[in-house]
Amino acid sequence: MKFYVLTIFPELMETLLRSSILGRAEKNGFLDFHVLNIRDYSTDRHKKTDDYPYGGGAGMVMTAQPVYDAYEAARKEIGGPVRTIYLTPAAKVFTQKDAKAYAKEEALILLCGHYEGVDQRVLDEIVTDEISIGDYVLTGGEPAAWVLIDAISRMVPGVLTNETSGEQESLEGGLLEYPQYTRPELWRDHRVPEILLSGDHAKVDAWRRDQAILKTKAVRPELLAEAELTTKERARFLSEPPSHDA
Amino acid sequence: MKFYVLTIFPELMETLLRSSILGRAEKNGFLDFHVLNIRDYSTDRHKKTDDYPYGGGAGMVMTAQPVYDAYEAARKEIGGPVRTIYLTPAAKVFTQKDAKAYAKEEALILLCGHYEGVDQRVLDEIVTDEISIGDYVLTGGEPAAWVLIDAISRMVPGVLTNETSGEQESLEGGLLEYPQYTRPELWRDHRVPEILLSGDHAKVDAWRRDQAILKTKAVRPELLAEAELTTKERARFLSEPPSHDA
Repeated sequence: MKFYVLTIFPELMETLLRSSILGRAEKNGFLDFHVLNIRDYSTDRHKKTDDYPYGGGAGMVMTAQPVYDAYEAARKEIGGPVRTIYLTPAAKVFTQKDAKAYAKEEALILLCGHYEGVDQRVLDEIVTDEISIGDYVLTGGEPAAWVLIDAISRMVPGVLTNETSGEQESLEGGLLEYPQYTRPELWRDHRVPEILLSGDHAKVDAWRRDQAILKTKAVRPELLAEAELTTKERARFLSEPPSHDA
Repeated sequence: MKFYVLTIFPELMETLLRSSILGRAEKNGFLDFHVLNIRDYSTDRHKKTDDYPYGGGAGMVMTAQPVYDAYEAARKEIGGPVRTIYLTPAAKVFTQKDAKAYAKEEALILLCGHYEGVDQRVLDEIVTDEISIGDYVLTGGEPAAWVLIDAISRMVPGVLTNETSGEQESLEGGLLEYPQYTRPELWRDHRVPEILLSGDHAKVDAWRRDQAILKTKAVRPELLAEAELTTKERARFLSEPPSHDA
């Protein structure tokens, strides 16, 4: 899968995308990163990429021309139609379901905004998907682009190897992750739960499932209502405890 | 404000945190980043930081000892009590309100997990706040840590200068950002909205407010119910249009 990132911090984005699991996946041919420096496409003689907002107000706005020309360069390289994502808090919030869906695309273009935003006219012209990674404001689109690329990439077949797993994990079936334990058995007076040492896989699986449900109930009860639970589990975890007065 | 980041990718985190606005804010004394390499604290002779999960399953789990010792090193440097954040999708979701609240802390410790998670015993021992940046899964905690630090830092007084603004912006008052425009007035047949060139600040403000409400209504209607709107605005934007049959 190919990612084209339009940014005013190209070196930083190159460093990020070539680290860790993403970098290895690119070396192995599963991912392909292209970072385009928006500044390189500015026709301004000072290579300017921003200007004051019409109508006044604090901050600077990214100008349409260099963003558009960087986009056009990416689009020509890709050849066919391509989803173009603008990262902004003024949008629908990205979820794991979206990560899976985007992982099926052959290529994506991501536009990282900065300052007080990007001239709306170029957004209207090029952007197919406005995406927020959450209800908070960042200094620029780069951290959000990294999050998006990371979440999507790990759903691309071949990117995750044995050491990691895209299958049984947080948010699968709408539940949060169960607690994990590793060696040693005794650490600072704390023992690993006995059941995990039992070798009884069915019991371990049942315990983990209960833990995942309990964790979800404790910290994200709103997810539990939508989670895939059996009728028995619904009775055990979702019904109110019988009242003492009853 | 001081950030202590516990990670197995220290060089990457150093590069990130010293770029752009965050890097400048650190040079100017408003922020102070300390990146601790968890591997440096491993007492294992191969400096191992992970092991197989008890109870089986795919992936590796980060061991308690090096995480704990890295945490202790950070805590001792800070001196007093400190909120310690573990970044995980199995937690409450971070919002702009949290960014403002955390910006009042003198110091924070952030733990970046990897692989299939961290031994639960060390989390129980050191973590005060489990935080998710959104309902999606990442290959590690580093992108999430960058997002969190970026969102919190820009609310620390002194970090944002004239070129940017922490005041009037997305999510303030529960509304999304209005569209922005900058020079030239005419770009590829698209004109800047006439009102922004009028010089009438009251009209510009009213137009922008309407645009913010319309944008919020279109893409995040659930936010509008909670937004700070006047009675007039509620009547204009929230009530159903009068039916033609009436």
